[in-house]
Amino acid sequence: MHQKKNPVKNLLQSPQNEVIREFVGSLPFDCRLYSWDIIGSLAHIDSLKAAGVLTAKEQKDMRGGLIELLDDLKKGKAELSPALEDIHMNIEALLDEKIGSLAGKLHTGRSRNDQVALDLRLYSRERTLKTLEELAELQEVILSIAKQNLKTVMPGLTHLQPAQPVTLAHHMMAYWFKFKRDFDRLKECYNRMNFCPLGAGALAGNTYRIDRFQVANALGFTGPMENSMDAVSDRDFVVELIFCLTVIMNHISSIAEEIVLWNTPQFGFINLSPELTTGSSMMPQKRNPDIAELARAKSGRVTGDLVSILTVLKGLPLTYNRDLQEDKEPLFDAFDTSIDSLAAIRNLLSTAKFNAEKMKDACLSSNLVATDLADYLVGKGIPFRNAYAIVKEMIKESIDDESPIEKWSLAQLKKHSDLFEDDAVDFLQPEKAVERREIFGGTAASAVEKSLSLAEKYANEQKKAIEKIRGDVEGTISRLLG
Amino acid sequence: MHQKKNPVKNLLQSPQNEVIREFVGSLPFDCRLYSWDIIGSLAHIDSLKAAGVLTAKEQKDMRGGLIELLDDLKKGKAELSPALEDIHMNIEALLDEKIGSLAGKLHTGRSRNDQVALDLRLYSRERTLKTLEELAELQEVILSIAKQNLKTVMPGLTHLQPAQPVTLAHHMMAYWFKFKRDFDRLKECYNRMNFCPLGAGALAGNTYRIDRFQVANALGFTGPMENSMDAVSDRDFVVELIFCLTVIMNHISSIAEEIVLWNTPQFGFINLSPELTTGSSMMPQKRNPDIAELARAKSGRVTGDLVSILTVLKGLPLTYNRDLQEDKEPLFDAFDTSIDSLAAIRNLLSTAKFNAEKMKDACLSSNLVATDLADYLVGKGIPFRNAYAIVKEMIKESIDDESPIEKWSLAQLKKHSDLFEDDAVDFLQPEKAVERREIFGGTAASAVEKSLSLAEKYANEQKKAIEKIRGDVEGTISRLLG
Amino acid sequence: MHQKKNPVKNLLQSPQNEVIREFVGSLPFDCRLYSWDIIGSLAHIDSLKAAGVLTAKEQKDMRGGLIELLDDLKKGKAELSPALEDIHMNIEALLDEKIGSLAGKLHTGRSRNDQVALDLRLYSRERTLKTLEELAELQEVILSIAKQNLKTVMPGLTHLQPAQPVTLAHHMMAYWFKFKRDFDRLKECYNRMNFCPLGAGALAGNTYRIDRFQVANALGFTGPMENSMDAVSDRDFVVELIFCLTVIMNHISSIAEEIVLWNTPQFGFINLSPELTTGSSMMPQKRNPDIAELARAKSGRVTGDLVSILTVLKGLPLTYNRDLQEDKEPLFDAFDTSIDSLAAIRNLLSTAKFNAEKMKDACLSSNLVATDLADYLVGKGIPFRNAYAIVKEMIKESIDDESPIEKWSLAQLKKHSDLFEDDAVDFLQPEKAVERREIFGGTAASAVEKSLSLAEKYANEQKKAIEKIRGDVEGTISRLLG
Amino acid sequence: MHQKKNPVKNLLQSPQNEVIREFVGSLPFDCRLYSWDIIGSLAHIDSLKAAGVLTAKEQKDMRGGLIELLDDLKKGKAELSPALEDIHMNIEALLDEKIGSLAGKLHTGRSRNDQVALDLRLYSRERTLKTLEELAELQEVILSIAKQNLKTVMPGLTHLQPAQPVTLAHHMMAYWFKFKRDFDRLKECYNRMNFCPLGAGALAGNTYRIDRFQVANALGFTGPMENSMDAVSDRDFVVELIFCLTVIMNHISSIAEEIVLWNTPQFGFINLSPELTTGSSMMPQKRNPDIAELARAKSGRVTGDLVSILTVLKGLPLTYNRDLQEDKEPLFDAFDTSIDSLAAIRNLLSTAKFNAEKMKDACLSSNLVATDLADYLVGKGIPFRNAYAIVKEMIKESIDDESPIEKWSLAQLKKHSDLFEDDAVDFLQPEKAVERREIFGGTAASAVEKSLSLAEKYANEQKKAIEKIRGDVEGTISRLLG
Repeated sequence: MHQKKNPVKNLLQSPQNEVIREFVGSLPFDCRLYSWDIIGSLAHIDSLKAAGVLTAKEQKDMRGGLIELLDDLKKGKAELSPALEDIHMNIEALLDEKIGSLAGKLHTGRSRNDQVALDLRLYSRERTLKTLEELAELQEVILSIAKQNLKTVMPGLTHLQPAQPVTLAHHMMAYWFKFKRDFDRLKECYNRMNFCPLGAGALAGNTYRIDRFQVANALGFTGPMENSMDAVSDRDFVVELIFCLTVIMNHISSIAEEIVLWNTPQFGFINLSPELTTGSSMMPQKRNPDIAELARAKSGRVTGDLVSILTVLKGLPLTYNRDLQEDKEPLFDAFDTSIDSLAAIRNLLSTAKFNAEKMKDACLSSNLVATDLADYLVGKGIPFRNAYAIVKEMIKESIDDESPIEKWSLAQLKKHSDLFEDDAVDFLQPEKAVERREIFGGTAASAVEKSLSLAEKYANEQKKAIEKIRGDVEGTISRLLG
Repeated sequence: MHQKKNPVKNLLQSPQNEVIREFVGSLPFDCRLYSWDIIGSLAHIDSLKAAGVLTAKEQKDMRGGLIELLDDLKKGKAELSPALEDIHMNIEALLDEKIGSLAGKLHTGRSRNDQVALDLRLYSRERTLKTLEELAELQEVILSIAKQNLKTVMPGLTHLQPAQPVTLAHHMMAYWFKFKRDFDRLKECYNRMNFCPLGAGALAGNTYRIDRFQVANALGFTGPMENSMDAVSDRDFVVELIFCLTVIMNHISSIAEEIVLWNTPQFGFINLSPELTTGSSMMPQKRNPDIAELARAKSGRVTGDLVSILTVLKGLPLTYNRDLQEDKEPLFDAFDTSIDSLAAIRNLLSTAKFNAEKMKDACLSSNLVATDLADYLVGKGIPFRNAYAIVKEMIKESIDDESPIEKWSLAQLKKHSDLFEDDAVDFLQPEKAVERREIFGGTAASAVEKSLSLAEKYANEQKKAIEKIRGDVEGTISRLLG
Repeated sequence: MHQKKNPVKNLLQSPQNEVIREFVGSLPFDCRLYSWDIIGSLAHIDSLKAAGVLTAKEQKDMRGGLIELLDDLKKGKAELSPALEDIHMNIEALLDEKIGSLAGKLHTGRSRNDQVALDLRLYSRERTLKTLEELAELQEVILSIAKQNLKTVMPGLTHLQPAQPVTLAHHMMAYWFKFKRDFDRLKECYNRMNFCPLGAGALAGNTYRIDRFQVANALGFTGPMENSMDAVSDRDFVVELIFCLTVIMNHISSIAEEIVLWNTPQFGFINLSPELTTGSSMMPQKRNPDIAELARAKSGRVTGDLVSILTVLKGLPLTYNRDLQEDKEPLFDAFDTSIDSLAAIRNLLSTAKFNAEKMKDACLSSNLVATDLADYLVGKGIPFRNAYAIVKEMIKESIDDESPIEKWSLAQLKKHSDLFEDDAVDFLQPEKAVERREIFGGTAASAVEKSLSLAEKYANEQKKAIEKIRGDVEGTISRLLG
Repeated sequence: MHQKKNPVKNLLQSPQNEVIREFVGSLPFDCRLYSWDIIGSLAHIDSLKAAGVLTAKEQKDMRGGLIELLDDLKKGKAELSPALEDIHMNIEALLDEKIGSLAGKLHTGRSRNDQVALDLRLYSRERTLKTLEELAELQEVILSIAKQNLKTVMPGLTHLQPAQPVTLAHHMMAYWFKFKRDFDRLKECYNRMNFCPLGAGALAGNTYRIDRFQVANALGFTGPMENSMDAVSDRDFVVELIFCLTVIMNHISSIAEEIVLWNTPQFGFINLSPELTTGSSMMPQKRNPDIAELARAKSGRVTGDLVSILTVLKGLPLTYNRDLQEDKEPLFDAFDTSIDSLAAIRNLLSTAKFNAEKMKDACLSSNLVATDLADYLVGKGIPFRNAYAIVKEMIKESIDDESPIEKWSLAQLKKHSDLFEDDAVDFLQPEKAVERREIFGGTAASAVEKSLSLAEKYANEQKKAIEKIRGDVEGTISRLLG
């Protein structure tokens, strides 16, 4: 009965038929924004008070009502109604039930256009923080594997063919640095996003003396957005966030591919934890790497999310168009998928056992040392191209005779070139080949140790970046709710 | 306590930790397949009985249990457990609760690999049917608008610039024929999809004397798939279905764009039903075409679904890989989105009012008749390129003098060419221009009427196609449940 | 000096500055359409003559000029000028140089809008024909490999893990049936595309008594398009063609992935022809499967082409918009890429050697027969789930003891279940397992032979379809040029 | 005849057949990298000399040969041969022709894997610089339009419906700030990309005492990449660059859409320069906004490029796979398209005339001042929701009576609420409404002037960023060639 006078409900319930309400409504997904919507409103109330639009009493009552409502929603005590189209209308209606018509003043100087832009940024900040944390945790696992495997030789592949020996440490660190770029990219996206649209109104700003710098500050933003029409139409941050997640997932798809491959009996480089593999309903012997397969596949999902939002935005005129409502589901899905996949791969790697013996064996029959033999000859003064030709002949013989070059004697070597001397046999061992690449960024333990130190330095910087962002997110909560 | 002995539950619950179960589990979305999963099992049971694997008693008990279970699930009386990973395991576990260990025989000669491929095809058939019905309904609305507007002239645009006069009927029928192609494409996709994977087992077929032709027939399929490894790995139908929906949505995006445009005060060609427009929370004057905007945007969503599945499938080796689990959500979403959007646009069009006066006015000051004037001169024997040049001069004068050519006198025409005679003034009227294009596919009422007849003929064929498919879908249900 | 009076050149050269002409011009790519553009014009001339627009003399002169011009262009004797924006304008200008102002009549009753739609359809028909031919040739190679390998056992994989033994024949035939669907899909796309837009003019038809059925017929089309506004705006065929090519390339990416994998020393299932592998500039031992890698990658390229055209078309209002010019490059690229990739993979497969021994070896230590052992127990009357549990225990023991189950004695089997009897040892051999799956679509030689017969039947139907299309394409050429 | 001994040519020409060479070869597109390939080699030579691998004489001879070769290539005097697969092999072969077998030493300690990664980064730096310059130039044009239109009122739209009055200055500045984000994003991508892969060899580093920091420095990089396997497999920079261009093109598509719209007779807000519009071959009156249409469409092309590269990279294992060759064409195309489109839109805007009168007229009959009237009532003390309801009634009356609210008298206002007083009539004028939004980021001239100042400040920072990057690019050239 109180319901009946609710102006918001009246506004929206009358005109539309049900089918359409469902088509147009966003509550099923934007309900995820409820706490940030309320926090944004709390900041807006303070703003209105400072601008003289609300009295102290009004401010206090509205604030009290909103905080109570937040608590109700968290505890599942308030009910959201799809009939009210979106989360913003729901919250205003619920507030009306609590504090009566005063709730109507909440929307002064604000439109759903700047409100939803605000909510989505606040939400995105928190999820970005979570993603950065997950990235850093995965990097930590990778670093720890690397530290334990500085001397674990394995075949380094190009074209999925044996190329040169490397170490597991070096291989894993390649991913570490990829994820570092992902971290930085996402962090910079955060910095670009962390500006406040509030005050932009429907599109043109508002006529109240609201201090946009102050409210931006209260909400942990770097500052207000500089142009109201940009503020309500901008979804660059959605696109860029999803893109950052796409690249992360692309890297995840590569590491997952390698896990799937290493987990075959043919390669056998890795034993996944039985707890994290799955059986078959028909084949009792199976222990399948489903997590890696799914993580690999989910990269497609996030790429799809990216294409969705790009297509939605293509050719849209200024300013707010209802098309923009289609920004949320791809963003939510991309965050959920990426955060879960990062955790899944981390769990998989941290519980896996690497099979050093199999890796070593794979090094010993693949002519992996061919380049080193050529380098040896270059060291004796002939052009690389000629050395290359000589070694190519040796490889041919090795394959024809099924006699792995790694096991050749000096005499056999000398048959192909007089330049081979005593020290040449050293060049046949993968461990030695690995150690010979002491160059910065190379495979030698000393070089990898240098990159481990660098990684630790970067990890510290990453931690600081996470702290800063956590300060923005949690500071906002404590300032407005605390 | 019965639970405790459930072999399925034991199989799956023990090994995995919770986080991973959530990552790997598909129940939250594949639960939509439950009725088709049961129907598929009913057919499989009959097959096993015919092959002598099950006794008549076993067949009867299993059948009874499954039908009861279907009823329970429909009524919400049975509970699905995410701990059991997917819908197939859930149903087997629930059946075990009903009929005890006999349930274990359900999986004889079947793997989840062929089972899920079956379920997804059965589900897709039903949704394809629904989509075809929606397409046909939208076409019906379009046809009806066309019939009422054979003489309603409006500016035909190229480059969004006035080009030549057309009629609203002709304009709308362009969409009719686009949707016809969409109908045919989807129907052919259905025909290609309607083959039965059951019997393919995990990947290699099975060793029981199951008659795959018979079970395919019982399930309303054209026949069994010819190769078991193809049967479990094939997701072409998912890709093709989503593609068909993408093209539909692409057409929807175009018609939606035109509605948004026509709904501006500048164009004013259409008045949308107030029930189907939305207001602004800040601007009291607004009646926004949100439905059209959302339908336009949702084309991006389906394009994203298409890219998802294509990326998932890229580079996958045979046969089943867990990556394939990522086929369902894009497919479900593409169907939901397209079906809803077709209905939304149909509602919008069927309740809209077209503003014939505004359309006519827009014809009278846009030099739309320029081509006809050139054609007139060509009719008098000069090459088109020269006629073109003369009319171009006339247009220039018309613009400079702000004197619409449509209102020129014969004398004014003659100033530009002596070839203009009495009959030339007829060439200044848009209605006459429209009528002059009697060519097949042209704008004259007689030509459009011909295309209306064609459309009605095609519509009949479409109805028959729908009936045929409905027969497959509903026949399957009645054969197995009836 | 003749040049100077060229009305076409004047029309276009004057207004635009050079930078813009380059941005807007399409000659660098639409020049590929030149022969189809001329053939379309030849048909249009006949049409104009029949409609009384051209005299017999004019028809003859124009026809003569165009055929001469076609010959010049083929021999590189005529020069196209980017200043003339597109191929249509170039050809008209060149014709003007040959036959003077009569060339101006070529454009009577035609616009570049229907003209380019025509050219693109004629071009697409020819390329579709070529693609279908390439598909059929690849299928032939696959069929031939299958025929030679009916008994070549290999591990069938799910999740890239050994699952059940299959034969190479069966594995290859899975691809055969995938490519068959691709063939059918493309053929149906052809049928949907093969309608004639000519006569649609700029958007509204034209005012001449042109017989659109006759000209459609002369050009080998099924008939004219039913609506002029649809005819000039429709690019569905471009989208659908690229989609069909995307699915082909998706299949190519899978077979390529398998080739890359089989080519590793770990798998060793295939030896690629040295002529078709590539070395490394640094590593003398490398023979890399570059062709397979590139073919796999090129699937991404065609997916990109598909997204391009879908994004271009999103939200476009009727009718022709210049955006549509962006249809050509993705289409051309998708055709080129797919045709080349099909040929490349065909070459790779037809020259590869399959290593039957390695495949057999891989079968003997992977517990591939586990399902058969479970089936054996089911045959003795226990539910599958229980049989599954027993075999699971056996597998565990086999792994713990490093004693491949394939080599177990009957006694060892009996330790796990009394149900194992003399005939059980048969169930340990992969060849026997393969033969046990005689079910339609299964792995037994008899079953695969059945699918080979089916494939041959289908191949014949495909050949007829190719002949029909070749008739359309070549018939058009001979009718109009012959 | 010198040719015959060319070891590079022999290496590659023999094994492959022609068809395959074409499929595998990259020369048709990677030839664009030739000057950067030579510059990279010049740096590598210095490195080899410093490491004691080359003598001073060798260094000098190779350097001389390469510089001569660069000059030959620039002047078209050297010929590239597709038979030599790629640009790197071509250059080495040409060098061999110049300086004989010494050329063979060029490849010491280097692989095509790190070489091509280097070339692509050097190329990308230069194109990034060009893109940033184009962005800045477009921003300059926008800024200049804004400065001239601080008082030019126009309807601000949401949902393409009139919402509130804004100024052209404010509208244009929304784009300015969008492009600023684009600038920053691309600049940060540059910083992330500007690391040197040289020294990574095929994948594992090399065994020579090359100083990677020094060579990185000589080539204008921030430093060497930290991990050799990452260095040769990383294509993140390609993905990120294309993404940055995609966002730019997405913004271009929006501004292009608005230009197309404003250019319609219905809107009439803009008159495009006749030099930059195109006629129709059939309709003499047309002046089509082709440039805007094409720029809009080309956003689809770049989105396609992005999807291409993402799909190519999906699921690739470390390290170099030939798939990576497919990185170049999408990157080249995305740069070309974006740079050209930015220039095209800049040309279009800088030569367009804005029609202030039409814009003003459009403000006066659209109830644009509704929000202001509601705000007026709120100022009198009633809640916004109630004010909203009152104004809604007024709008209804205005529409029913076809009496634009902008022309109402005070008496008419008072009929709806007693709160309206003398000062209310001010609220009916769009100019006043615009001025009332003095809030930061709002529409008032004072507020827009503030944002102009900010923009100028940012523009200066952008200029400095461009200078810094130009220093890297040109410094590299002058250090190595100068």
